[in-house]
Amino acid sequence: MTHKELLLQHSAWMTETDSPVVISSRVRLARNLEDFPFPHVLGEEGAGQVEKIVSQVLMSIAGDIGQLDYISLTELNSVEQQVLIEKHLISPSLGGSTGARGVALAPDHRYAVMVNEEDHVRIQVLLPGNQLLETHRLATELDDALEAKLDFAYRETQGYLTACPTNVGTGLRASVMVHLPALVIMKQVQQVLGTLTRLGLAVRGLYGEGSQAFGHMFQVSNQITLGKSEEDILTHLDAVTGQIVEHELQARELLKVQMPMFLEDKVWRARGTLQNSRLLSSEDAMHLLSHDRLGTDLGLLPKIKDCFASLIVDTRSGCLQYILDRELDPSQRDEERARLVRARTTLA
Amino acid sequence: MTHKELLLQHSAWMTETDSPVVISSRVRLARNLEDFPFPHVLGEEGAGQVEKIVSQVLMSIAGDIGQLDYISLTELNSVEQQVLIEKHLISPSLGGSTGARGVALAPDHRYAVMVNEEDHVRIQVLLPGNQLLETHRLATELDDALEAKLDFAYRETQGYLTACPTNVGTGLRASVMVHLPALVIMKQVQQVLGTLTRLGLAVRGLYGEGSQAFGHMFQVSNQITLGKSEEDILTHLDAVTGQIVEHELQARELLKVQMPMFLEDKVWRARGTLQNSRLLSSEDAMHLLSHDRLGTDLGLLPKIKDCFASLIVDTRSGCLQYILDRELDPSQRDEERARLVRARTTLA
Repeated sequence: MTHKELLLQHSAWMTETDSPVVISSRVRLARNLEDFPFPHVLGEEGAGQVEKIVSQVLMSIAGDIGQLDYISLTELNSVEQQVLIEKHLISPSLGGSTGARGVALAPDHRYAVMVNEEDHVRIQVLLPGNQLLETHRLATELDDALEAKLDFAYRETQGYLTACPTNVGTGLRASVMVHLPALVIMKQVQQVLGTLTRLGLAVRGLYGEGSQAFGHMFQVSNQITLGKSEEDILTHLDAVTGQIVEHELQARELLKVQMPMFLEDKVWRARGTLQNSRLLSSEDAMHLLSHDRLGTDLGLLPKIKDCFASLIVDTRSGCLQYILDRELDPSQRDEERARLVRARTTLA
Repeated sequence: MTHKELLLQHSAWMTETDSPVVISSRVRLARNLEDFPFPHVLGEEGAGQVEKIVSQVLMSIAGDIGQLDYISLTELNSVEQQVLIEKHLISPSLGGSTGARGVALAPDHRYAVMVNEEDHVRIQVLLPGNQLLETHRLATELDDALEAKLDFAYRETQGYLTACPTNVGTGLRASVMVHLPALVIMKQVQQVLGTLTRLGLAVRGLYGEGSQAFGHMFQVSNQITLGKSEEDILTHLDAVTGQIVEHELQARELLKVQMPMFLEDKVWRARGTLQNSRLLSSEDAMHLLSHDRLGTDLGLLPKIKDCFASLIVDTRSGCLQYILDRELDPSQRDEERARLVRARTTLA
């Protein structure tokens, strides 16, 4: 598979599931090689050696995990790097840095292993819907497969060593992406998510922005990696996720009962605008797509061809330009985004 | 024809014409009976006598003018009166007053003669498109027919006497209703219409509001009735109308050339919202219908079933309730307005 083909594959996490609120589940494990300094003090030569060692092991993996393709980021132009960021396959900081670094990807992107990000190895597993435990199982399986061939820095007392102390211990960061349009409409989202930091959890928008997250999507993740077992971390996040889902579903029910016409009007106008606009900003698109999905989830709107997450991601400026295979200035992007959305929001 | 049937007739002035800018042309002649005081000092009994005399003459007219039906306003409830106002067949002040008063209507509403408004008789002719001269011809024809049977107060030196001195002389008020969406979008409407008062013309919105007229429709009328011949008044207004049309068409051309995507986006979003909304305020409806008509006029949107002026008028709260034959509270109106607009904006 060429890089282009690989990047344009449908990402497993974007598949629609039965879960109306939890879009995707993610587990990330931070690992470092015993014999090398951490990336930020590694130097050019060392980075090259780490990339070579790790990427060879990554490409040699087979069995249940399947074939991973390794992409060196130095081979990608800025749009291609942006595509990886927009699809949540690499971090913005990996894209923004220089030197020997890259990512190994499964054909459906469920596995994405970054090399020489903040740590030598960052294993990511990203699955659609609410399945943290399965996500973690896959991450652990891949971790085991790598550990069989690589010497990861590990201390009995501290656990896995990481470049940043906040990741020491399990090296585990688990997160869920939740879609909370009803809580946003009912102005309850701050109230529901605001308490999470006190529970050791962090909340960010889909693309790292704050509480007024684009598309009403929020990432909730654990902050603490040390002194808790992986199981505790996952169980805790899973329980909190269940609570958030409950709040969102209650808010939807309230909207349906207390202001049915307001709700219907909102989702139908969103559908009408998506199917008719000729210029569409990225922010506008996410907002309207969010209302459209709410309407579809509630059975108020007929289903459209494409799925929500694909549309959200493909309307980002990097993906948009990559799909169309040409550079676009901002006003051309708004025009092409509108065209793409019109084509993909026809009825299923 | 029953009152209900008569009120629900399609008004001739709402018919689409070749004129993309001038919606309708109107001529009004103010007349008073020689033997009665003006309405504001007429008293209850006198008003009854005037109504009886004038209405009998009105109902006896035949020939080219055709049959007129007389409706006494005391027989109408407030919604029916509102319908007449919204269709521009009576003035708000006739609806708002009390006592013996009414209106004689042609089946297609081209003639509407108010009795006991500010003057005893106010002849109105209202035709679609840009045809002031024809409108005036019909008004004069009706005036002659009435004058053959009624003794109108007329002095050689002053002309027709009227209750308000601003109408003395010809008693003629001529107006055109112009649709100026491009001038509004380009923020040139103030500039173009602002100079008209200096030319002895008045500008109002479709329903009497100011410069931010609903639906981007403006009524331009003469202010001066004395010391100018009817022909001068009409020729002057006609020439100015031609200038306004020219400005609007230039603004449309500029929009098409300088910001084609902005324009397309605006009109397609309007169409999409009209076809999809579930709650629609009256103001919102007029605004969107205006953009929709602009798009249709410019060939950017496919034609819809109903015509612009009918939709503008039928979405007003009086007409809406009258069509549906029931009283509606404001939120029900928004819901029913959206339903009516969805049904009538399907493609032709």
